[in-house]
Amino acid sequence: MAYRLNEKIRDLKPYDPISGDFSVRLDANESFLPVPQKILQKIAEAVILASYNRYPDPLAKELCQSLGEYYHVSPDLVTAGNGSDELISIICSAFLMKGDTMLTLSPDFSMYRFYASIAEAKSKQYFKKPDMTIDIDQLIAAANASQAKMILFSNPCNPTSLGLKREEVRRLITSVDALVVLDEAYMDFWEESMLDEVENYDNLMILRTCSKAFGMAGIRLGFAVANRTLTNALKAVKSPYNVNTLTQRTGSVILKEGQWLRSCIEEIKSSRDMLSEKMSVLENNYSQRMHVYPSVTNFLFVKIAQAEEVYRELLKSGVAVRYLGDFLRITTGTKEENEKFMQAFEKAIRL
Amino acid sequence: MAYRLNEKIRDLKPYDPISGDFSVRLDANESFLPVPQKILQKIAEAVILASYNRYPDPLAKELCQSLGEYYHVSPDLVTAGNGSDELISIICSAFLMKGDTMLTLSPDFSMYRFYASIAEAKSKQYFKKPDMTIDIDQLIAAANASQAKMILFSNPCNPTSLGLKREEVRRLITSVDALVVLDEAYMDFWEESMLDEVENYDNLMILRTCSKAFGMAGIRLGFAVANRTLTNALKAVKSPYNVNTLTQRTGSVILKEGQWLRSCIEEIKSSRDMLSEKMSVLENNYSQRMHVYPSVTNFLFVKIAQAEEVYRELLKSGVAVRYLGDFLRITTGTKEENEKFMQAFEKAIRL
Repeated sequence: MAYRLNEKIRDLKPYDPISGDFSVRLDANESFLPVPQKILQKIAEAVILASYNRYPDPLAKELCQSLGEYYHVSPDLVTAGNGSDELISIICSAFLMKGDTMLTLSPDFSMYRFYASIAEAKSKQYFKKPDMTIDIDQLIAAANASQAKMILFSNPCNPTSLGLKREEVRRLITSVDALVVLDEAYMDFWEESMLDEVENYDNLMILRTCSKAFGMAGIRLGFAVANRTLTNALKAVKSPYNVNTLTQRTGSVILKEGQWLRSCIEEIKSSRDMLSEKMSVLENNYSQRMHVYPSVTNFLFVKIAQAEEVYRELLKSGVAVRYLGDFLRITTGTKEENEKFMQAFEKAIRL
Repeated sequence: MAYRLNEKIRDLKPYDPISGDFSVRLDANESFLPVPQKILQKIAEAVILASYNRYPDPLAKELCQSLGEYYHVSPDLVTAGNGSDELISIICSAFLMKGDTMLTLSPDFSMYRFYASIAEAKSKQYFKKPDMTIDIDQLIAAANASQAKMILFSNPCNPTSLGLKREEVRRLITSVDALVVLDEAYMDFWEESMLDEVENYDNLMILRTCSKAFGMAGIRLGFAVANRTLTNALKAVKSPYNVNTLTQRTGSVILKEGQWLRSCIEEIKSSRDMLSEKMSVLENNYSQRMHVYPSVTNFLFVKIAQAEEVYRELLKSGVAVRYLGDFLRITTGTKEENEKFMQAFEKAIRL
């Protein structure tokens, strides 16, 4: 008999990142800073001592403790996952019932809606203003009009690079019945985190990641922070041993290196500021063609005429950035990478 | 406003494995064999060379290649996951629509029904015969009567330790409209795998794991093997970078150690045979009280009167096994562990 895939997955294609050999990779919002030898050695030591034949700690207690210490939150409110992705997938499938409405924002990280579709939730979108900022009253109205059960968005936003201030986030949380899931993947580059206030709300869940500011995209380690009730539910629905021993140990090593992590963040911000300045100078000359948004993240969001052509020209020069319709998203890199990007970009924009 | 958890997660409690300090752990079907120093060194070298600040290969090509070589299957038909658990969770949420029927068997691994409930699928159970074997005609009839969209079961079975022969599995696959998901977590201890035949069917998906025979429970690495259509769909719905770089590299190292892996399997089987023999001798003396099922896995399944009392007595002696209603499940351990278990068990059964 012929088995047929159901309608929600029938036409999906596997994720296919840019392939090809580009000398400058500024397309994935990774950190350009490698792990120093001294810390690599600590990781290797921690890893070699692992009991490979035994299951990991299902609650990743030491790891959650380390995260708690770094951010000054109670480790009891922390759930670890295989990147925020796994947590988003679990949150969508467990905290939404089929037919519930999930409100997302546009533009925002595209995977939120994907996970909602697999959970068979109705997906509604709030469209940001032309300047890419969020009208919080409109967002609240949209949430309540659609009786949204969940609002999930990134703050600061990927890809717009803009942030929503704490005061506005607070207003949102207290004005809706929905669970507000704040993806703070880029909040290490800004100072408007809601982490300190997570126990004040029964409908707030915050996601953090080691992939961006901490330069640990390779270990796929993310965290959810929420009050006790939400945390218990999340820990109960996740796969029991979701985060493996290698990741738990490596994460614990890294999170204890607070001084190094903070120095990375400063270095990345200063690289972004330099790139942003150069791009602004260019914008003065090409104000009809391009606009650079003010970034509070590790990347720039640029509106540009003929974005696809510019993107293809950059690839030809060996520089990969992210192409998003009328926009390009450019991760800040090393001094040399940013210079190569600027050269290629100036060349491309003149065409 | 008060946020309320929905009905499918409201009453869940986080997974809480046996806690306490037991000198002999035979409760989780782990391998008792630690990784040899020589291989540990290779893992440490592979891990230290990782680009931590870059995302992993989303398709884990080298890892799937290594698995393909070990099992002689095409790497294109392999999807890697964070343990079979992640894959089961994804398969249930994506390959089932809400309201679809998933057929499980009883007794079997309890998590299958849990993931179905999160996917809001209807869960039907086929109950095995009193001797714990499966009547394949009854199973087929149950699948077709309930119009099951998926049948998910372990073969060999956890916890019964019994296996279903290839010929019967083939008959099941060709007699139902459902997707048949075979969890072959323990198939390295038996010789009735369907891996060789996976391309012959459009409704067969096979799960394998590094947690049991390969002694790698700590890295939480599992695989799904299926035809191209199913594999593409699975790769498309999984989180893009689900398996991290550390796990990909460690898995690749391990899977290239075919000789060591095969020697582990032989050692574990011979340990199980010895334990089984000792238990059978005991059964001759206590045939009214206990029955040991013939195992094709790395554990024994034992029906026993007053199972809970025996279980508690074992814990008091520092021996942890798995308590399952009228049954105990005992992972085979080292010679010393098995001897300690036997001593404790003989004492407990006399009470």
